[in-house]
Amino acid sequence: MPVNLSAPDPASLHPVPGVRLGITQAGIRKADRRDLSVIVLDEGASVAGVFTKNRFCAAPVQICREHLAAGAAVRAILVNTGNANAGTGADGLARAHQSCEALAALLNIQPQQVLPFSTGVIMETLPVDRIIKGLPAAIAALRPDAWDEAALGIMTTDTIPKAASTQVQIGGVTVTLTGISKGAGMIRPNMATMLGYVATDANINPALLQALVTEAADASFNRITIDGDTSTNDSFVLIATHQAKHARIESLSSAEGQVLRAALIEVSQRLAQAIVRDGEGATKFITVQIDGGRNEAECKLAAYAIAHSPLVKTAFFASDPNLGRILAAVGYAGIDDLDQTLIDLHLDDVHVVRAGGRHPDYREEDGQRVMKQSEISVRVNLNRGAASATVWTCDLSHDYVTINADYRS
Amino acid sequence: MPVNLSAPDPASLHPVPGVRLGITQAGIRKADRRDLSVIVLDEGASVAGVFTKNRFCAAPVQICREHLAAGAAVRAILVNTGNANAGTGADGLARAHQSCEALAALLNIQPQQVLPFSTGVIMETLPVDRIIKGLPAAIAALRPDAWDEAALGIMTTDTIPKAASTQVQIGGVTVTLTGISKGAGMIRPNMATMLGYVATDANINPALLQALVTEAADASFNRITIDGDTSTNDSFVLIATHQAKHARIESLSSAEGQVLRAALIEVSQRLAQAIVRDGEGATKFITVQIDGGRNEAECKLAAYAIAHSPLVKTAFFASDPNLGRILAAVGYAGIDDLDQTLIDLHLDDVHVVRAGGRHPDYREEDGQRVMKQSEISVRVNLNRGAASATVWTCDLSHDYVTINADYRS
Repeated sequence: MPVNLSAPDPASLHPVPGVRLGITQAGIRKADRRDLSVIVLDEGASVAGVFTKNRFCAAPVQICREHLAAGAAVRAILVNTGNANAGTGADGLARAHQSCEALAALLNIQPQQVLPFSTGVIMETLPVDRIIKGLPAAIAALRPDAWDEAALGIMTTDTIPKAASTQVQIGGVTVTLTGISKGAGMIRPNMATMLGYVATDANINPALLQALVTEAADASFNRITIDGDTSTNDSFVLIATHQAKHARIESLSSAEGQVLRAALIEVSQRLAQAIVRDGEGATKFITVQIDGGRNEAECKLAAYAIAHSPLVKTAFFASDPNLGRILAAVGYAGIDDLDQTLIDLHLDDVHVVRAGGRHPDYREEDGQRVMKQSEISVRVNLNRGAASATVWTCDLSHDYVTINADYRS
Repeated sequence: MPVNLSAPDPASLHPVPGVRLGITQAGIRKADRRDLSVIVLDEGASVAGVFTKNRFCAAPVQICREHLAAGAAVRAILVNTGNANAGTGADGLARAHQSCEALAALLNIQPQQVLPFSTGVIMETLPVDRIIKGLPAAIAALRPDAWDEAALGIMTTDTIPKAASTQVQIGGVTVTLTGISKGAGMIRPNMATMLGYVATDANINPALLQALVTEAADASFNRITIDGDTSTNDSFVLIATHQAKHARIESLSSAEGQVLRAALIEVSQRLAQAIVRDGEGATKFITVQIDGGRNEAECKLAAYAIAHSPLVKTAFFASDPNLGRILAAVGYAGIDDLDQTLIDLHLDDVHVVRAGGRHPDYREEDGQRVMKQSEISVRVNLNRGAASATVWTCDLSHDYVTINADYRS
């Protein structure tokens, strides 16, 4: 059961002028499953993306990087589930190229104008013939208002489709941002997650897009973790169709640039947090905030140590305020000169640890009360500087083990 | 159920001349539990230890470091279970000091000659009054042949006592090494584990002891992981009573030094591996070996990434050869310039991946056969150098979640 997350109301997902989506069943791994999605962009759109830093990155990730680096105007995005096309060597690259060529031929564009994405089991051969056979149906289904279907179409172990949409005013014009994401396990994105797409009709200098998507990923997908496993296929893509009629944004620090930036971060965070809320076996949504660090890097070390600790995560699952496990994680996070006698720990509003020891007023029943909630914030103050970092994660439950012991069967 | 591990035969645990052990029930956390152990050393013994690098190290760890640094001849070791005395601030230090003072008074030695150790729940107040009350019974029980009882006396979530013993010939004289260890969760030692003690009657220059214990820890306890959580209380202690009648060892590189070194590493590895075999919820014992690295550090990065991945560990639990998860872990291990097209992967004798892709002869049923075994070796060749590293770990099962969700209740 996802944590305080329900399927998005289709009416809340504003179409983005210049973007159409088509979803079909191609039988890639299982029958009766929408497993093939095509997103087609009007001429003039710009695309930027960030991709996994996993050195075993998938064939489609390598091709996305190539196509974006080549500078060809991206006109189509192709997503299959059921197979990650990772750990597949030269054969995997060839099959991903074939899928781009087939879609390009049908849309009368160049293969370099297609970005391919795959998600599913690693180290199995991509059934590219089934993908090619499914493409005409996906193209026939193209519609501007199919974001809800696309959110379904990219799911693997997700239990709930994930989408977010907002509208802002820029230069007196309504600008839309709508996005989808998927992912529930192998989630500890490093640059981006597996998979996220946000489109906007904002009119923005294409040269600004890469900085914008990088910043948004860092504030959202790069701050979530479920199991600490960085995927081979993480990808986060920002599409700008430029069709809104306001004056073109030439700087992210302009007033208009700031409005767009804030809206993008908001949508990206909602999509990223939705992944955690639907984390494999998740029963709690946990915000880990570290304050008082000397720099952001050490705050992230401490936040991830807590968020990755199986002992901390099982204690949350059990609603057991065994909070010494949090201190232990901070202690081994890798901050070499950390002074334990400075540490404070709050669980929501409950002051648990002061100066490295149990707070004299801390009562177990207060910790217990917070631990029973479905949304919990852990705040650690290192009291040695002014930097902060926040990470979102979930607990570790029996269902996590069940899901991952059974994933392929 | 521990993996291929049974309680040691008491007759196999050779007494070490100069060492006596006494165990009692002090009611520290639970009734009817042997939770207090005292080890008393004859005059003339030397002791060296390595301790957790966790910055939130426990009060007794801080005191052990102090006492060893002060250079006082250690005559007694005091171990309690049921309470870790970590995250307890200045009050925790005071209580640990009190326990040393009480034992010193009973043995007519100085408090600085006592090394205190605690293991159990973090961030709870040490019931030092119960420890002090239990000391006379522990002292009355002192015997040279109580290693099996001491192994029981230091257990927490362990299901099986852990001990190992060997004898070697040095200068025509029989020299004994006998040790005990405990630990089943919060196991990812960094310098040592929670807790290990090895004693020998070898006659060795005390100045060599620290180098010897550090080397042994690095070859044994520092190579195991269960859940990636480095404990606040990890300690590994080497005792030399010097009572064997051979000529004193003055160099670890001498023939006699090498015999002792090899025997110590063997005993330490058996004790360390016993901890993994009895890992919380463990059903498989897994050896992760990385070859072909440029240096040992990058081999360890890859080995620990595999050994800590919840996805890899749940696949082992399920006997599911979902081996792409191993590649993904190698890919995110942090080796920035890793070339995936060079990677080979073997599961025992089965060649799974060649040059970064699925080996053409690999058949799923071969992987399945190995995955069903209780002892599995994973060998990854990075093919970019001559360095290697080995780490021992276990799988992640439902019982791990159950044990850690229920630990305090």
